[in-house]
Amino acid sequence: MKILQAISFVIICHAGFAQTPDETTIRQIYNIALAEGKSYSMLEYLSTKIGQRLSGSPGAAAGVEWSRHTMEDFGFDSVWLQPVMVPHWVRGQKEIGRIVNSKKMGVLDVNVCALGGSIGTGPDGISASVVEVKSFDELAQLGVKNIQGKIVFFNRPMDPKQIDTFTAYGGAVNQRGGGASEAAKYGAVGVIVRSMGINNEDYPHTGGMGYPANGTKIPAIAISTKHADLLSKILKDDKGMQFYMESHCEILEDAPSYNVIGQINGGEYKDEIIVVGGHLDSWDLAQGAHDDGTGCVQSIEVLRILKMMGYKPKRTIRAVMFINEENGLRGGLKYAEIAEKNKEKHIAAIESDRGGFTPHGFTMTASDAVRKKVQSWKPLLEPYGLTDFNQQGGGADISPLERQGVPVMEFLPDSQRYFSYHHTKEDTFDKVDKRELELGAASMAAMVYLIDKYGLK
Amino acid sequence: MKILQAISFVIICHAGFAQTPDETTIRQIYNIALAEGKSYSMLEYLSTKIGQRLSGSPGAAAGVEWSRHTMEDFGFDSVWLQPVMVPHWVRGQKEIGRIVNSKKMGVLDVNVCALGGSIGTGPDGISASVVEVKSFDELAQLGVKNIQGKIVFFNRPMDPKQIDTFTAYGGAVNQRGGGASEAAKYGAVGVIVRSMGINNEDYPHTGGMGYPANGTKIPAIAISTKHADLLSKILKDDKGMQFYMESHCEILEDAPSYNVIGQINGGEYKDEIIVVGGHLDSWDLAQGAHDDGTGCVQSIEVLRILKMMGYKPKRTIRAVMFINEENGLRGGLKYAEIAEKNKEKHIAAIESDRGGFTPHGFTMTASDAVRKKVQSWKPLLEPYGLTDFNQQGGGADISPLERQGVPVMEFLPDSQRYFSYHHTKEDTFDKVDKRELELGAASMAAMVYLIDKYGLK
Repeated sequence: MKILQAISFVIICHAGFAQTPDETTIRQIYNIALAEGKSYSMLEYLSTKIGQRLSGSPGAAAGVEWSRHTMEDFGFDSVWLQPVMVPHWVRGQKEIGRIVNSKKMGVLDVNVCALGGSIGTGPDGISASVVEVKSFDELAQLGVKNIQGKIVFFNRPMDPKQIDTFTAYGGAVNQRGGGASEAAKYGAVGVIVRSMGINNEDYPHTGGMGYPANGTKIPAIAISTKHADLLSKILKDDKGMQFYMESHCEILEDAPSYNVIGQINGGEYKDEIIVVGGHLDSWDLAQGAHDDGTGCVQSIEVLRILKMMGYKPKRTIRAVMFINEENGLRGGLKYAEIAEKNKEKHIAAIESDRGGFTPHGFTMTASDAVRKKVQSWKPLLEPYGLTDFNQQGGGADISPLERQGVPVMEFLPDSQRYFSYHHTKEDTFDKVDKRELELGAASMAAMVYLIDKYGLK
Repeated sequence: MKILQAISFVIICHAGFAQTPDETTIRQIYNIALAEGKSYSMLEYLSTKIGQRLSGSPGAAAGVEWSRHTMEDFGFDSVWLQPVMVPHWVRGQKEIGRIVNSKKMGVLDVNVCALGGSIGTGPDGISASVVEVKSFDELAQLGVKNIQGKIVFFNRPMDPKQIDTFTAYGGAVNQRGGGASEAAKYGAVGVIVRSMGINNEDYPHTGGMGYPANGTKIPAIAISTKHADLLSKILKDDKGMQFYMESHCEILEDAPSYNVIGQINGGEYKDEIIVVGGHLDSWDLAQGAHDDGTGCVQSIEVLRILKMMGYKPKRTIRAVMFINEENGLRGGLKYAEIAEKNKEKHIAAIESDRGGFTPHGFTMTASDAVRKKVQSWKPLLEPYGLTDFNQQGGGADISPLERQGVPVMEFLPDSQRYFSYHHTKEDTFDKVDKRELELGAASMAAMVYLIDKYGLK
């Protein structure tokens, strides 16, 4: 890219034109986010000084305190903690996954980690032969006679041909969430799940799984995509191969924690509340930078930008750091429960939980009238790369509000890199681009501004 | 991001619908790029095995050979080298930039590199006091009496408030390209230019600069943005400060090199040529991964995908690895010269030289009729994130074709991260995301397919 060409861009882009008040305000929002932004330095602290924030952990408690102090320091009108009991799962010492008795490979350690919520094997581990399946249907066809006493290896990949990686995720993640309970029905003693990664990777992805109330609980681990391919290859012509898995995770008593809420009070319609939020908890393998430190700092930044501009909102605007999205959703449930109990009137809730990447738009679950109103703002937002307002969906933490009839939206950034980091040791601060993060915060602030000014009716 | 939500996406996205033949073909192009792509492995080799490819260097020669062999191995109908003489600038031993005699800092080395095309200071270096300016106007106002015998420090930043980083680049890069020649008019002995980086960075950005035919030549170096800020701060209250710069770069005799061209022959309109290209040369500080290894491998991948699909083009399709974009444009000039001499009929030329990031669209410099025709394809391309077909512009290498009246386009990916890597030691293979790169190759292939099938008339 050379010089002359770039200069011609400037001339085109700087051609003057009169701005409407909305255009001027939105431009000001982006100017602050990009030239005087705090989201990146907030994220640096949350990711590198506090780090992992698994529900019930000291990291989560530190995250709660940091969120409160940060929002207090910015001078929001009120900041408070909302108590909530959260599940307390701990990983314990590092897991072992080992191919043993392989004709060609002998003994080989593979990269694994326990899935969140899984019971552990305990120190004696589990040793068994492995049956690979691609689906629950295939598992059912194999039945008890082929599964009893074995480890089931769920190996259906995320489909790389999907353009949206979340679609690819949705097509594979039932193996992680429900694989153990399905396999247990047929007498399996443990499960290995191919990591929810779309590329060929060395490291495993953790993530939530669950057991039915009355089912047998068997341990579940994730294996890196690279080692999933290797294991599958070995299994093809090595029927005597055994697999050893050892994990030390435990499910402890529920622990006390908090949602953290900051608020700027509204004027004209102060009883109408707009929520913007992310989840404060993270998995324990890294720093929870993209999942979901970015959503938290962007939400705080929305209020900070509006305050810094001297904007006086008509409605009350809240930034909510939900706790326990990853393995329980207790924070989201509690927030909606209290909202209902207090008869609070939420007119919109926006979540950011798809990473801090370049903004593309917002998803929405709302009436046709609300969707049309939001889409009518597209000309104001398109200059900032926000073009997609068509998809369904809100965030997990605000789904309990959605069930109360609140229009919900999720910030929609580019999805291509998300599943390289998601729930892995790679989800660290250095994977977040400053400008991409800042543009996301500005996009959310612009949307909040428009909802505040015009309502959603 | 949890499970239920992701599953609902799949249901929505997999809802069946009948595809038109164009939809089917474009889907097939993306499937191959994402599930059976070669762009990433090609780029890995070009970046990590060959590395930097500065015009005239052994790396550039290796890049030429690699391009030829790669396209021959893919079985394109013809592959050839197009000889062209290129400028041969060499950096020599590492540069020194040193703040000396500072009241507060004493002696301090700062991160600098020579600008491409600059003369060196030689081993004795240059020591002088520094005058900071933000523009050529400010320089002219200071005039000879303030500039004579001094080093001029051009310190106008790229504007972080610009949404498109290329616009920010365009607003600052005249300091790099023309700063030395402007400062020399007033008797300056050297120039320091703030790096063309939009963030606060430790490392300098090189890049092309030039001297007028009859002007005085003075040495030019770039300084990291972080050290530019530091230098500016010191200058504010430390008038006795001196700066020492030492560079060993040299302009040698022009060297022989080549454009590398691969072709798939057309059928019905075989005399009509569609060019898709990138530039093979790079700066010498890293691997030239995003600038412009990605454009090269994407261009090769376009032909490989179409061939792999068994697609029989109506028109002749060429992948061109242009040489010497960075410091001379000799490859682009030679290609257009030969095209004119041979009376070749180019109906379109597409360049990829903005990095291997998530696709947003294509820029275009063409008649209104051509633009409207391309925009009429938007419904076919929007599902793949290609929404922007409004901007002016083609690539530097194809600008000589543009002057012959050929419609030109440039692949338009996301711009946010480009200037963190551009012309620096950071432009390495690990900064390229596999899926983002592959989506770019598919987007270019889809555009070539549509132009081939429907023409641009």
